[in-house]
Amino acid sequence: MAAPTPLLKDELDIVIPTIRNLDFLEMWRPFFQPYHLIIVQDGDPSKTIKVPEGFDYELYNRNDINRILGPKASCISFKDSACRCFGYMVSKKKYIYTIDDDCFVATNPSGHKINALEQHIKNLLCPSTPFFFNTLYEPFREGADFVRGYPFSLREGVPTAVSHGLWLNIPDYDAPTQLVKPLERNTRYVDAIMTIPKGTLFPMCGMNLAFDRDLIGPAMYFGLMGDGQPIGRYDDMWAGWCCKVICDHLGLGIKTGLPYIYHSKASNPFVNLRKEYKGIFWQEDIIPFFQTLVLPKEATTVQKCYIVLAKQVKEKLSKIDPYFDKLADAMVTWIEAWDELNPAGASLPNGKA
Amino acid sequence: MAAPTPLLKDELDIVIPTIRNLDFLEMWRPFFQPYHLIIVQDGDPSKTIKVPEGFDYELYNRNDINRILGPKASCISFKDSACRCFGYMVSKKKYIYTIDDDCFVATNPSGHKINALEQHIKNLLCPSTPFFFNTLYEPFREGADFVRGYPFSLREGVPTAVSHGLWLNIPDYDAPTQLVKPLERNTRYVDAIMTIPKGTLFPMCGMNLAFDRDLIGPAMYFGLMGDGQPIGRYDDMWAGWCCKVICDHLGLGIKTGLPYIYHSKASNPFVNLRKEYKGIFWQEDIIPFFQTLVLPKEATTVQKCYIVLAKQVKEKLSKIDPYFDKLADAMVTWIEAWDELNPAGASLPNGKA
Repeated sequence: MAAPTPLLKDELDIVIPTIRNLDFLEMWRPFFQPYHLIIVQDGDPSKTIKVPEGFDYELYNRNDINRILGPKASCISFKDSACRCFGYMVSKKKYIYTIDDDCFVATNPSGHKINALEQHIKNLLCPSTPFFFNTLYEPFREGADFVRGYPFSLREGVPTAVSHGLWLNIPDYDAPTQLVKPLERNTRYVDAIMTIPKGTLFPMCGMNLAFDRDLIGPAMYFGLMGDGQPIGRYDDMWAGWCCKVICDHLGLGIKTGLPYIYHSKASNPFVNLRKEYKGIFWQEDIIPFFQTLVLPKEATTVQKCYIVLAKQVKEKLSKIDPYFDKLADAMVTWIEAWDELNPAGASLPNGKA
Repeated sequence: MAAPTPLLKDELDIVIPTIRNLDFLEMWRPFFQPYHLIIVQDGDPSKTIKVPEGFDYELYNRNDINRILGPKASCISFKDSACRCFGYMVSKKKYIYTIDDDCFVATNPSGHKINALEQHIKNLLCPSTPFFFNTLYEPFREGADFVRGYPFSLREGVPTAVSHGLWLNIPDYDAPTQLVKPLERNTRYVDAIMTIPKGTLFPMCGMNLAFDRDLIGPAMYFGLMGDGQPIGRYDDMWAGWCCKVICDHLGLGIKTGLPYIYHSKASNPFVNLRKEYKGIFWQEDIIPFFQTLVLPKEATTVQKCYIVLAKQVKEKLSKIDPYFDKLADAMVTWIEAWDELNPAGASLPNGKA
């Protein structure tokens, strides 16, 4: 880690879903300006979104999504930030970083501004260790290593597919917790990165997230949320559960911890409760479904895994609500659309296109 | 957590294995003096160990161990700090804290002396969450909670059986890593506590460790190490693997992270290599053994689990080396000795004696 972190400026796109002018980019200028932005405009396509000068970007609104995907556009959510996954699909880069437009640059305890993107790149370029827990956290960081008793055969690790960053200030709470603890702020800077162990599910938040498109992209589908759907705010969770079981199956790693961003605004807990309440029930069946899911040996690519998963969702979750039937179909449509926009070879492992 | 942490001074023993005068206790006086100490003197029993004035303690040397356990004393290691587990057995308290005599009081980043024992008590009194990962770490700490997407049915948690603390300054590295990085010091204070997920093994270090005797005591056997044995420095690791599979089976939790102690002295890496080298090989078979171990439903107590485990060790690990045959026998002897010193009722769940 003594070597400088590669910028990867030609290999990474920043995906931002938004309904407003992107003034928040001003604060990120020193860190984001070298990169290409993919802005996915949510809601009314006739509205003009202003992007600060000097940024290199492409912007897609609903009309663009419909034009590009045709009938397959049905798999992309409307009036929900879940629409961001369209950006993952149209990108041609190996890495994606996605961030919400109410997230600002955080400062570390020494008062330095945190270059979140740089830390995500570090996380993604460095192996994961999902098979055994290291008590001193990330063994590959400067000043750290594997501790006594860590099996030597497991120290090489596996490729890292996802880097999940955290949030200072407004924590990512569900509506009931927001209602109960309206004033709680996250002020604890935990100086750690860790691999989420194999077999363990986690709540993946889409607010400050990076991933390797070639390794896991097709599983980063944010589902059907928002307009016309019975549920919201489970888009990133859904993607997280799907990604985790597929990473576990394919021998890929997911890291969580650093970097922090500063999350500026709590969303309305009453609105959130309306969006979430079905998810709060359904989740009690969805989690055991993912915990016991077994993918077949023949599922050797992300796409194959995802199609098997869609089939299982239809078979086992449709009894909860007809929504899952629709979701399972959308998962298949998503993969078809992904493969159409990313013809074979474009997303080979390690970007060897 | 706003309530003050109970001292538990009549419910906790501090177990210290040593071969020298316990001057290190001076630094711990403000934190340890209210507690009873159990000192297990390793090596030559004719040597006198000096304990600073004002501490309440009992001291056992090898002659005492032989007298108390008779032929069963064979299960207690000699000339190795693994002998500390004798102290767990003779204690009559619900909680144990064990610490090495080269561990001093650490300071946190604000410069305050860390009361390690108080943090361990906090960890043990607060539930664990082994079934799902919480990205903001310990959900029960002040200023933290379960994040969005954490299943509500899992928020009650399970009882915590073990609290594994960490070390600043000299990290707990194996001999090869010590040899390669002689100057590495751990200076990173990670302000986190977390539950080790179900199904994941970890390297448990005995240097700064607390546990609930009633919940997991009989599994805290530190094996056969030191004099007359082909292996050393795997005592705490062995206990950790055994405890973890039994906790997973019985629905108990293990936490790691805070508190830190200051580990003052690196042990000799050449001596360590001699002790460790067989373990480095054997471990490659031992870890898969523990990872795939299934305990039967009928094993409803720690003792029952441990006897099944001993049988499995004999069946499946003896082929590695005859040592495991001897170890499996010693595991059974340990349980017999434990039950003799702790007659039924003395170690019922939740201390309801």
